[in-house]
Amino acid sequence: MDSIAYGGDYNPDQWSREVWREDVALMREAGVNFVSLGIFSWAHLEISEGQFDFSWMDELFELLHEAGIRIDLATPTAAPPAWFFRTYPEARAVARDLTVLGPGSRGMASPHAPAYREACLRITRALAERYGNHPALALWHVHNEYGGVPESFSEYDQEAFRTWLQQRYGELEALNAAWGTAFWGQTFRHWEEVHAPLPTASVRNPALELDWKRFSNDSILDCYRAERDVLHEISPHVPVTTNFMSHTCPDMDLWTWADEVDIVSDDHYLRADDPRGFVELALNADLVRSLSRGRPWILMEHSTSGVNWQPRNVAKQPGEMARNSLSHLGRGADAIAFFQWRASRRGAEKFHSAMVPHAGTGSRVWREVCELGAQLSSFSAATGSRVRADVAILWDWESQWAQDLPWRPSVDLGHRVQTNTWYERLWRDHQAVDFVHPEADLSAYRLVLAPASYLLTDTAAGNLERYVKAGGNLVVGPFSGIVDENDAVREGGLNAALSELLGVQVHEFCPLRQEDSARITWDAGSSDVGTRELPVAVWCEELVTTTATVLARYAEGPRPGGPAITEHAHGSGKAWYVGSDLDLDGLATVFRGAYAAAGIGVPDLPADVEVLQRHGEDGTRYVVLLNHTDQAHTLTIPGTDHEATIEAGESQTLQVTG
Amino acid sequence: MDSIAYGGDYNPDQWSREVWREDVALMREAGVNFVSLGIFSWAHLEISEGQFDFSWMDELFELLHEAGIRIDLATPTAAPPAWFFRTYPEARAVARDLTVLGPGSRGMASPHAPAYREACLRITRALAERYGNHPALALWHVHNEYGGVPESFSEYDQEAFRTWLQQRYGELEALNAAWGTAFWGQTFRHWEEVHAPLPTASVRNPALELDWKRFSNDSILDCYRAERDVLHEISPHVPVTTNFMSHTCPDMDLWTWADEVDIVSDDHYLRADDPRGFVELALNADLVRSLSRGRPWILMEHSTSGVNWQPRNVAKQPGEMARNSLSHLGRGADAIAFFQWRASRRGAEKFHSAMVPHAGTGSRVWREVCELGAQLSSFSAATGSRVRADVAILWDWESQWAQDLPWRPSVDLGHRVQTNTWYERLWRDHQAVDFVHPEADLSAYRLVLAPASYLLTDTAAGNLERYVKAGGNLVVGPFSGIVDENDAVREGGLNAALSELLGVQVHEFCPLRQEDSARITWDAGSSDVGTRELPVAVWCEELVTTTATVLARYAEGPRPGGPAITEHAHGSGKAWYVGSDLDLDGLATVFRGAYAAAGIGVPDLPADVEVLQRHGEDGTRYVVLLNHTDQAHTLTIPGTDHEATIEAGESQTLQVTG
Amino acid sequence: MDSIAYGGDYNPDQWSREVWREDVALMREAGVNFVSLGIFSWAHLEISEGQFDFSWMDELFELLHEAGIRIDLATPTAAPPAWFFRTYPEARAVARDLTVLGPGSRGMASPHAPAYREACLRITRALAERYGNHPALALWHVHNEYGGVPESFSEYDQEAFRTWLQQRYGELEALNAAWGTAFWGQTFRHWEEVHAPLPTASVRNPALELDWKRFSNDSILDCYRAERDVLHEISPHVPVTTNFMSHTCPDMDLWTWADEVDIVSDDHYLRADDPRGFVELALNADLVRSLSRGRPWILMEHSTSGVNWQPRNVAKQPGEMARNSLSHLGRGADAIAFFQWRASRRGAEKFHSAMVPHAGTGSRVWREVCELGAQLSSFSAATGSRVRADVAILWDWESQWAQDLPWRPSVDLGHRVQTNTWYERLWRDHQAVDFVHPEADLSAYRLVLAPASYLLTDTAAGNLERYVKAGGNLVVGPFSGIVDENDAVREGGLNAALSELLGVQVHEFCPLRQEDSARITWDAGSSDVGTRELPVAVWCEELVTTTATVLARYAEGPRPGGPAITEHAHGSGKAWYVGSDLDLDGLATVFRGAYAAAGIGVPDLPADVEVLQRHGEDGTRYVVLLNHTDQAHTLTIPGTDHEATIEAGESQTLQVTG
Repeated sequence: MDSIAYGGDYNPDQWSREVWREDVALMREAGVNFVSLGIFSWAHLEISEGQFDFSWMDELFELLHEAGIRIDLATPTAAPPAWFFRTYPEARAVARDLTVLGPGSRGMASPHAPAYREACLRITRALAERYGNHPALALWHVHNEYGGVPESFSEYDQEAFRTWLQQRYGELEALNAAWGTAFWGQTFRHWEEVHAPLPTASVRNPALELDWKRFSNDSILDCYRAERDVLHEISPHVPVTTNFMSHTCPDMDLWTWADEVDIVSDDHYLRADDPRGFVELALNADLVRSLSRGRPWILMEHSTSGVNWQPRNVAKQPGEMARNSLSHLGRGADAIAFFQWRASRRGAEKFHSAMVPHAGTGSRVWREVCELGAQLSSFSAATGSRVRADVAILWDWESQWAQDLPWRPSVDLGHRVQTNTWYERLWRDHQAVDFVHPEADLSAYRLVLAPASYLLTDTAAGNLERYVKAGGNLVVGPFSGIVDENDAVREGGLNAALSELLGVQVHEFCPLRQEDSARITWDAGSSDVGTRELPVAVWCEELVTTTATVLARYAEGPRPGGPAITEHAHGSGKAWYVGSDLDLDGLATVFRGAYAAAGIGVPDLPADVEVLQRHGEDGTRYVVLLNHTDQAHTLTIPGTDHEATIEAGESQTLQVTG
Repeated sequence: MDSIAYGGDYNPDQWSREVWREDVALMREAGVNFVSLGIFSWAHLEISEGQFDFSWMDELFELLHEAGIRIDLATPTAAPPAWFFRTYPEARAVARDLTVLGPGSRGMASPHAPAYREACLRITRALAERYGNHPALALWHVHNEYGGVPESFSEYDQEAFRTWLQQRYGELEALNAAWGTAFWGQTFRHWEEVHAPLPTASVRNPALELDWKRFSNDSILDCYRAERDVLHEISPHVPVTTNFMSHTCPDMDLWTWADEVDIVSDDHYLRADDPRGFVELALNADLVRSLSRGRPWILMEHSTSGVNWQPRNVAKQPGEMARNSLSHLGRGADAIAFFQWRASRRGAEKFHSAMVPHAGTGSRVWREVCELGAQLSSFSAATGSRVRADVAILWDWESQWAQDLPWRPSVDLGHRVQTNTWYERLWRDHQAVDFVHPEADLSAYRLVLAPASYLLTDTAAGNLERYVKAGGNLVVGPFSGIVDENDAVREGGLNAALSELLGVQVHEFCPLRQEDSARITWDAGSSDVGTRELPVAVWCEELVTTTATVLARYAEGPRPGGPAITEHAHGSGKAWYVGSDLDLDGLATVFRGAYAAAGIGVPDLPADVEVLQRHGEDGTRYVVLLNHTDQAHTLTIPGTDHEATIEAGESQTLQVTG
Repeated sequence: MDSIAYGGDYNPDQWSREVWREDVALMREAGVNFVSLGIFSWAHLEISEGQFDFSWMDELFELLHEAGIRIDLATPTAAPPAWFFRTYPEARAVARDLTVLGPGSRGMASPHAPAYREACLRITRALAERYGNHPALALWHVHNEYGGVPESFSEYDQEAFRTWLQQRYGELEALNAAWGTAFWGQTFRHWEEVHAPLPTASVRNPALELDWKRFSNDSILDCYRAERDVLHEISPHVPVTTNFMSHTCPDMDLWTWADEVDIVSDDHYLRADDPRGFVELALNADLVRSLSRGRPWILMEHSTSGVNWQPRNVAKQPGEMARNSLSHLGRGADAIAFFQWRASRRGAEKFHSAMVPHAGTGSRVWREVCELGAQLSSFSAATGSRVRADVAILWDWESQWAQDLPWRPSVDLGHRVQTNTWYERLWRDHQAVDFVHPEADLSAYRLVLAPASYLLTDTAAGNLERYVKAGGNLVVGPFSGIVDENDAVREGGLNAALSELLGVQVHEFCPLRQEDSARITWDAGSSDVGTRELPVAVWCEELVTTTATVLARYAEGPRPGGPAITEHAHGSGKAWYVGSDLDLDGLATVFRGAYAAAGIGVPDLPADVEVLQRHGEDGTRYVVLLNHTDQAHTLTIPGTDHEATIEAGESQTLQVTG
């Protein structure tokens, strides 16, 4: 599309034909040009097995087409019809405790149940044949939020796991070696002895658990691929997506998914308990753009106001919906869409906000929906422009899975909180940030951060080494480089994968008791930096330097006097190591040196004001200004001499040429 | 009976015949004239299937009869014998997660298991034939605390649910429409697809859940009715009751039960963690009297001191048992009974207090038991007198069930805490209070409060409208009038059922974050009222007035400046709306105006002193005075010029004629 | 052995032959003379059912033997091989909720599964025949940490429970009487009706639960006995042990186990969340020595630094490992061993510390391991010496099980916290302490404490009475002497078992609300004692004295003015009763009098410094000094005029002759 797409999930099967007509009129009023159709319509499209009724959807296609609204048509396989589960009860998904998950809610079936796989392809093929060449069709939307039921333990799934392992390891002996089954005497002698992670008396082999995560991701990705292949076959000119839940579903390795979609799309919802949710939103949007390799992407779902599935579903403030939307756009989204168009009167999500709320078109929400539509429409020149970032953060779902397994040194040191804090430090320093896989090419970045790289493959470790030795700047966080891809500690020490690069060995993990804290004293040269006493909340390490320089030592904590933060130069490149969790102020002290080494400036902008830039091929800057504070600010847009004033709570878009 | 009944659960099957004789002598000493017999005696009455042994109970009937003690004979169906479960394992109850609940504790079987239903009627019939005409028999006590196992998922129960739905909806299409199955594509095409709320991957259809609650209530009520019908058939002159747990069991809709018993009875236990438990006790007693439509009722169980099933089972203070007992009596109870007569030496409840405690008759508890017996005996003229109330609070189990379903706007706004707070405000203002169903006749009340009417049927909404338009005064609390009987939001807005009556529309729910609060400023005329700054803890709303007058606005919170409390006159009637949760002081400010409009006075009485009045047909006032404070008070009994002095902790009864 | 044994669990099956050779060299460097071998080696020893491969273990035996390292050879039955579960899935253990616990972790099978029992004896016999006469073999190590899976509900186990009950009770009527099945109408008429504690709707009969605990203990002990008997038969000269988890596994009644092992051994791990874990360690070590009837014992496992299975696995401070080790030694251990020799690179415990840590031999941990080896080696004269104690604390697992059953008066009054506090008071007063079973001979002790004797058999009560009447001094804590061996309250009152001995009756339990507290005023004669206002946190009682003298009364609380602490003389013996939980200061006030009566002195030693003494047959004192503080202290060793200085954090050993 050559303008910003704007719209939402549209579920007309909950409404009468009269409402459909009103819907289309209101869509035009609001500037909606894009709707996602049919996500939960399987039961209304395939009345009974093999018997289809497309009449109502035909009508909607015409209605929307006439109104110039483009359609993102879903395959409805996230919610099989009641008849499906009646006919194929064996296809139900099964939870880890072997509870069979029946119908009566959303959530898919067992991904390896043949009946489910066949039924999915039948309805997908039927839809593709019916609508694949309709001029209103802009996009295929496969399934909905894959990963909502991230694993299943049906007999089919358990059997498939064994097959998957045979393909991965070939010989059973290789599996025994990789998993270290000699520990606790679990050596397998026959393939039939290998099993899914079913209930046991104590914890299970972590490498088994990690492979189960990989297998589960692959299983669900296979479901996607099968549907996509049918769509590509029948309507090759229509791009295919599936809506990720990049920040809320930890179970899908979206690096493996990103390569399989024609365009990346994502659903994002604020955590209502976080009054500064705009930072997490920014992280999420940067992550999605990174999954999309920098190309424009689709914000497939967010909310006009509160949601309904959190403990306290805080309504958005006036103006907040626009700021949220434009933050996504400023980070590369070319489409802004909502769940959902019209609030449902019945069912589990009737208290979720919508573009047309229960309160109707006399409401503030509707007014803001229309205003946002107009604002986006006036910014259509930005379509297709790109974001540029000098800093990258490593992000690896496999490492996250491994770190989340049981029996780690401390429950307090989470990869997510570490990454969030390091990201927020960059956000406060007004840096554009990409996320990258640890094995990806890093050469484009001046500075790379590894806040939480617990699992690091040999390839990834080599990649980091090459990056630094080629002049890159790398900051590594605590508990990093500990295990290989099988969750095994390497020979040579706890951080053997990185100890040479960093010039420091981790001799012991020293997590703090819940009520304890520690303190680091910064005694490195540069005396003009901020905080010199850095508080530590949960984690210390016993470090022994080999070739590194000590920048800071523990003043208090389990190993007083010991090194806490180090630096090691490799030619013009540099590698820092931070052995503790730091707060935002502490990170400021550390990053100051890294920015300087990397030649990165910190723009002079007000706190909690965002200035986001996308770059057109012709050099035009498409700028989004967001003011999260309750006062007005006047500022100069970095990289230009353009001055702008932004009111409290306001969001602006503007173009700067030159 | 023509005097206050006094006694308790009597479980002689745990004791020897020598103890029986001692029991009867002690009962006479304590003034006991009423015992509940045989509640858990099935195993001792029906030795094996169809083989009865009544000899021991015959003996007890004679023993008690000779001593002039009236018998409340239980059907023992709350605890089927071990032989029953051995013979009919398929009759076991099944939990929501499909765990089969075996024998070895209390708790009934699957309510739809034919073997259970037959066995219940067999033992009931046998007891009725044996004792139905015995002169000592005063009352039938069906089962025990129905609702302790409030739902069951056996195959019998699941099948019965389908039948129940067919009777309720007739056509499947009607069920689809009522439940809104189009949401998440759950449309049913065959009755066999409809199912009980078994495990699913995400939340289930709320209308299904609500109907399951109704069905479960009906299922258990049917069990009661079947036993009652046998008793009525065989001993038509003996009234039948079953002991409710009106305040602790949220699962039974006692409005539907109240009409099926000949006399209402109830079990009440203090929550030990509440040092002001006397307020909750008062609420409960008022609720039970209301279920009894104002007629005298039976306090079937309470405790002489601590119980055993709470985390910390606080013993009662000296005098507290009497105050508790007389609070029930002052609110309409004509019988005061305990669980249990003599403390069990074995089993799960041996640490529950009793009338004869482990410490024996040398104990303080026994002394107070005897004193209470004497006090009740001297107050027998009060038997049959009635309580009068000008204020009513709406109470509807169906609304409570619906509000407790998952995915509501905030977990913090509970119906129970709202209702408790509004009730306590009335209690502190020394008001007699009834509870009424929202569809019941309200014309007798000067003031009606709806603190938590989330679900309101069209009939109920019409009832409220008629009440106000006829001159009534109605105060409505937040999150009220939201859904119809199928948990569906109405067309026309979030509070469409009440918006015209109240003159205000709810545009958005604005729940607060856990750490946030809000503040309302009262700017209405009457400047002589109390608090003008009303704190809000958990809930605000975005209100838009149509015809209402704004009494107070949000000073701080999600919608500062917006209306918070409104008033709307309809002729001489008035309807107030309170869009937030208020504390007791805040409610005092609001209720002041409502009292004035309704012509209700607030008696000048000391705090935490209760003056309860029952009215005889001849105009005599039977007054109960309770002093919950640690100092003496002298006061004038409202409506009389009678003065009384009550010592710290004391409870008094007195009659005022004229 | 004639020196202190030093070593750890050795799992060479996880390593290559090259590493084995390095291991042995490092063991010699560290002074290791003892390793536990083969604990998880079943899968590597019995390749498939009945097919053995001993070649690799033969090699290790030779290797270790040549190096002079003695072997503690395990039967590997704690982790059956994968082939076992494939062949005998019915032998899997079953959890209380009927979840079947599969392979893929550690944890034994169903203890009553015939296939498991047969397989255990086959591998045990094979090992005994192969190695039973090997000169390097010092000890048999049966299984590992029995009690890790403390109960199982397979069909075999359920059936065995019924048989066990038939043996215990003979007639069903005796079981009905003992369990009090008349309560809640649970009387059994046929043995087939008796069942394991499977899921029920409410709580189960407590006597059933208690017998289930006894049965489960017996079941697992039977597994041990069967293996031991094979070992005794084949290698009668080699002692047999199994490693207890005396303080962390509450499910095994180790008094019944202690008599079945040839030498007591134990595993001990600090609770990382307790910064004063050395007190709990001391308690544990005293308990293990008591299980061993004073004879030297083996510390089979502890850790060189942090573990991996706690929420926050705090690393040990420099010097802490030595202090821990010597505290065990000073309390009677003749062997100090670790889990494990070399840190695993793979599997669930790779983050558990080890003697050879991931950081290798350049690490502080390795250095301290070697230093400790040298220290122990220089103290070999202490081998075989004994500890002497004047004070004993009652300890009874059956009472603990019973007190932990549901529906007790308060969740706050735990036996463990009471016992810990009373123990810590003694520890701070530098007393050597034994633990004794309540039915054991007490005549050797000047003072006996019963901090938490909820369940007390008639025999035990008689034992205490005899002890006091013979001149002993007994202090009894709250909630003691309440029930008999069937969890039944006795006729005659809540504390009937002790009321005559104590001269006081408990009339009511008065637990406090969570936010409340109470206060005792000490008004007994001796005015020179410490605290006179004793705070109470969770528990009071309504006490009525018969023949006792009141030493202290409640100043605040549920029964102000009532007795709180009493004393009653019987000839030269004395019995105190403490009706509340006291803190360490409060106990100091109470114990002062008891010490005086018992003629026990409190040595003048610095706080948090331990002086432990073992006595040789020749009168030599083997003294261990531990300084848990951060400053140096000079002190005189009690009972001698020997003076010593100990540095901050240091541990010393020394011999005092004469």
